Amino acid sequence: MSLHASYDDNNLFAKILRGEIPAVKVFEDDEALAFMDIFPQARGHVLVIPKNVKARTFLDLPEARVAPLMTRVHRLAKATEKALKPDGLTVTAFCGEPAGQTIFHLHFHIIPRYEGQRLAGHSHGNRADIAELESIARDIAAQL
Amino acid sequence: MSLHASYDDNNLFAKILRGEIPAVKVFEDDEALAFMDIFPQARGHVLVIPKNVKARTFLDLPEARVAPLMTRVHRLAKATEKALKPDGLTVTAFCGEPAGQTIFHLHFHIIPRYEGQRLAGHSHGNRADIAELESIARDIAAQL
Repeated sequence: MSLHASYDDNNLFAKILRGEIPAVKVFEDDEALAFMDIFPQARGHVLVIPKNVKARTFLDLPEARVAPLMTRVHRLAKATEKALKPDGLTVTAFCGEPAGQTIFHLHFHIIPRYEGQRLAGHSHGNRADIAELESIARDIAAQL
Repeated sequence: MSLHASYDDNNLFAKILRGEIPAVKVFEDDEALAFMDIFPQARGHVLVIPKNVKARTFLDLPEARVAPLMTRVHRLAKATEKALKPDGLTVTAFCGEPAGQTIFHLHFHIIPRYEGQRLAGHSHGNRADIAELESIARDIAAQL
């Protein structure tokens, strides 16, 4: 699929934004939604997505939306670090399939990193325990 | 080294900012400097760093500096994509050694991705040809 394909309104995150699919939410306002990745690459893997914009990738995001989105990504990264005290943390956006993107609504990953622990693959298929995700989400939200 | 160690003024990027070490620059203003990674993980690998701030990682960046930095990262990502037409692109910041960070001045990586081509390791030691980096830098700057 081209990096410049058109936005598909039925992508998974569009469905989450419309409330058609549940998500374990960490934060939400008019600009963005943050929720737990249900296939976490590490404990505390959070996704942050912009609302009300048809952006497949960071490249598609209108410039005026960059600052509000990234301010929220920054706050959530800091809160995740405070809540979980990992040894490191990665903030990343994959643009396009060759970069590893699998769902085509722009999302920033916030992935805690733990000493000596490799990342689980992005598509490992091990769905997380929802009660545990809810507990982590509460801990992160408490640090916002 | 702890995620919250203090900033070392003699890190490589601090030296580049002070002009003590050369870099192949793509863009520079009062907020940020963008330059070519000399050990590129893929053709067109750009680094964007904030100026006049002692931030080891994205977590250390004062909130007021997030929007100006990320607006520039966004512009540079778009220009890189326009100039090099990769099949994908990754925007990422590693916070801390366990996340893969090797130089402790905050930097965002903009890494073009090409179909069927794996990323070179972050520390592969293959220094790029400077003339080629200069040519790529000019191509990207022309799209800003």
